[in-house]
Amino acid sequence: MIATPVWNQATFEGLISRRGTSMKASTIRELLKITQHPDVISFAGGLPAPELFPLADISAAFERVMAHYGPAAMQYSTTEGHAPLREWIAERHSIAPQNVQIMTGSQQGLDLLGKILINEGDVVLVESPTYLGALQSFQPYLPQYLPMPTDDQGIDVMALDKLLANHKGKAPKVLYTIPNFQNPTGITLSLERREQLLDLTLRRGILILEDDPYGQLRFTGKGLPSLFELALKRTGDIEKVNVVYCSSFSKVLVPGMRDAWVEAATPIILKLIQAKQGADLHTPTVTQMMVTELLPDVLPRQIETVRRAYGQRAQHMIAQMKQFFPQSAQYTVPEGGMFLWVTLPRTANTAELLPRAVARKVAYVPGTPFFALGGGEHTMRLSYSSATPEQITTGIQALGDTLRDVLE
Amino acid sequence: MIATPVWNQATFEGLISRRGTSMKASTIRELLKITQHPDVISFAGGLPAPELFPLADISAAFERVMAHYGPAAMQYSTTEGHAPLREWIAERHSIAPQNVQIMTGSQQGLDLLGKILINEGDVVLVESPTYLGALQSFQPYLPQYLPMPTDDQGIDVMALDKLLANHKGKAPKVLYTIPNFQNPTGITLSLERREQLLDLTLRRGILILEDDPYGQLRFTGKGLPSLFELALKRTGDIEKVNVVYCSSFSKVLVPGMRDAWVEAATPIILKLIQAKQGADLHTPTVTQMMVTELLPDVLPRQIETVRRAYGQRAQHMIAQMKQFFPQSAQYTVPEGGMFLWVTLPRTANTAELLPRAVARKVAYVPGTPFFALGGGEHTMRLSYSSATPEQITTGIQALGDTLRDVLE
Repeated sequence: MIATPVWNQATFEGLISRRGTSMKASTIRELLKITQHPDVISFAGGLPAPELFPLADISAAFERVMAHYGPAAMQYSTTEGHAPLREWIAERHSIAPQNVQIMTGSQQGLDLLGKILINEGDVVLVESPTYLGALQSFQPYLPQYLPMPTDDQGIDVMALDKLLANHKGKAPKVLYTIPNFQNPTGITLSLERREQLLDLTLRRGILILEDDPYGQLRFTGKGLPSLFELALKRTGDIEKVNVVYCSSFSKVLVPGMRDAWVEAATPIILKLIQAKQGADLHTPTVTQMMVTELLPDVLPRQIETVRRAYGQRAQHMIAQMKQFFPQSAQYTVPEGGMFLWVTLPRTANTAELLPRAVARKVAYVPGTPFFALGGGEHTMRLSYSSATPEQITTGIQALGDTLRDVLE
Repeated sequence: MIATPVWNQATFEGLISRRGTSMKASTIRELLKITQHPDVISFAGGLPAPELFPLADISAAFERVMAHYGPAAMQYSTTEGHAPLREWIAERHSIAPQNVQIMTGSQQGLDLLGKILINEGDVVLVESPTYLGALQSFQPYLPQYLPMPTDDQGIDVMALDKLLANHKGKAPKVLYTIPNFQNPTGITLSLERREQLLDLTLRRGILILEDDPYGQLRFTGKGLPSLFELALKRTGDIEKVNVVYCSSFSKVLVPGMRDAWVEAATPIILKLIQAKQGADLHTPTVTQMMVTELLPDVLPRQIETVRRAYGQRAQHMIAQMKQFFPQSAQYTVPEGGMFLWVTLPRTANTAELLPRAVARKVAYVPGTPFFALGGGEHTMRLSYSSATPEQITTGIQALGDTLRDVLE
């Protein structure tokens, strides 16, 4: 008999698919390890404020679900999702429940959309910077990213049109955007730009993936219709709408139950169902039922609570930045959501700066990982959502001192 | 301005990736729709018995989790999974918790293993028949399936060795197997075959994906070590073990919380973490904590309860089949799990037969979808797990009558 070969690290690594090899350990995760000391004030995470979670309501919802559904709450359930939850979501946009697919977090929506849409080498348009998690979801499907020109109103559609007119190679297939209070920049796409973006994508045959986890969390300014709503209004028929809408209960209720959804035309939904069968069969039954219980009363109240708190925290953070940041540091002023974006002079490097900030007991996320093709070494993301006013005061002063050391 | 093109079904379908196009609507789902009348006795589903669910214990676990963890139970958590849950799983096999990855159902384990391992055209060895859900998970990664010869002791390893010696083209990379009470056949791989399979795969550089959702549910015969345990014993070091072990709490507790796991060497686990970040960030926090609460007392008791009930149901079903099935129908006699497998004479077609069975108010799953490359038109899967003794008596008689109509 032939000697048994030894299996070792190299053997295993040799088995990894090209897709698997393309996934990289998140540099951000490594960086953030140094920020996890309890006495460091962290503006790095993207966590909703846990002290605002409606825990008593959630417990009551669990009890009602168990009393009403009994074992069905713990049994396998349909891939499409809990029917009353799909119906509630559908009604808000006056679409059919069949056009709603429940997902295990928005992240699963992005993964499965990538899976059913992206061939290797397909061109995906992304904001620059964009949500790091979307890049992680799409990456295994080996797209080519084409970053879109953006300014303080979001995607610069006129510039994008020119870019695409001059674009050599494959025409873009998919455009990924977070129009409301974007992660990481906090920027909101203006109404005029939304209409322009629909014109451009319809004309060029591009499917928009609209990611809207924060849309309900506007604390100032006037609410804007989503791209999906605008497209639905134009066509009057979801089966002609070139926008796939993704949203989630993670930011307006709690993230730990992992309940999110996708709204789309039927051919997309049918493929998502097939993809989800292979991906996790279905989203946990009991948490879908619990979220459904919370919709009529708790959700609107909770949105109001979170919105007010985040508005105060953002305002406070900006006031502190105005006072303690050096003049050369620029930052966005979000109208909602959880994040703002700081741009330092080009000589600064926020990854290198992080240990110095941590030494002063404050942390942030360096900007580079949010850029599909790299860059943004002089940028950083700050989250105000889960920091108390005191932490914001102390943390922003400490960060201001850190920046001043380097910039002045 | 150029006229806006109309988006319609063809536009959307034209955007679907090759991977997406390769996914097919499950014929089984369509077939099973006719079986869902409340007065049809269904042996078709693969559902655990809901009347055995430990609902009071689950409610108590939820209360304890909320009291102990508070908002942390509803917050984002780590991709790797709830630490105490990983520790408990690791301890059973005396491995490090770092070699355990929590999954949102075993189905996610299969999906992500496919994602990190399978390049288009890679050869995947599968039992024939095999678990339909595994085929659904792997399919989007576009493998070539190579069905393995099997008999009533599971994979025929000697025949497999010959098959591989004569195999032209790419060498197989991955071998997927359910050694205990296989889905769909109920067959268990013998100990001798397990050792042979390890020899063969080590020699040929093949990674085994061992799927073991039913292993704890043995109701007769002697328990066998898993392939993973055998390999671990041989090498004494998980970093040299060519078996990835997948299991789940779905069949021994409840499936609706979607808690499962993978045990593997570090290079595999590290890639799974990266893949899971992009797939759903993490498994729901609260359900992981609830399962952990149930481990010390409820789980062993529940395994005993389920094992005894399924043993009685299997025995009863087989007794009824002996009495009421025509002589020409052959069937497996499982030592555990939820399924048995019926083989009719080759002239029979179980898909065509299904409406006649449903007319007699009984249902099963036709065998063909379980074969990676088709075939098995004369086979069917029966599940006894969620049927009462009365339903088994009535249902098997009705099915016997249906078979007799055709076969005699």
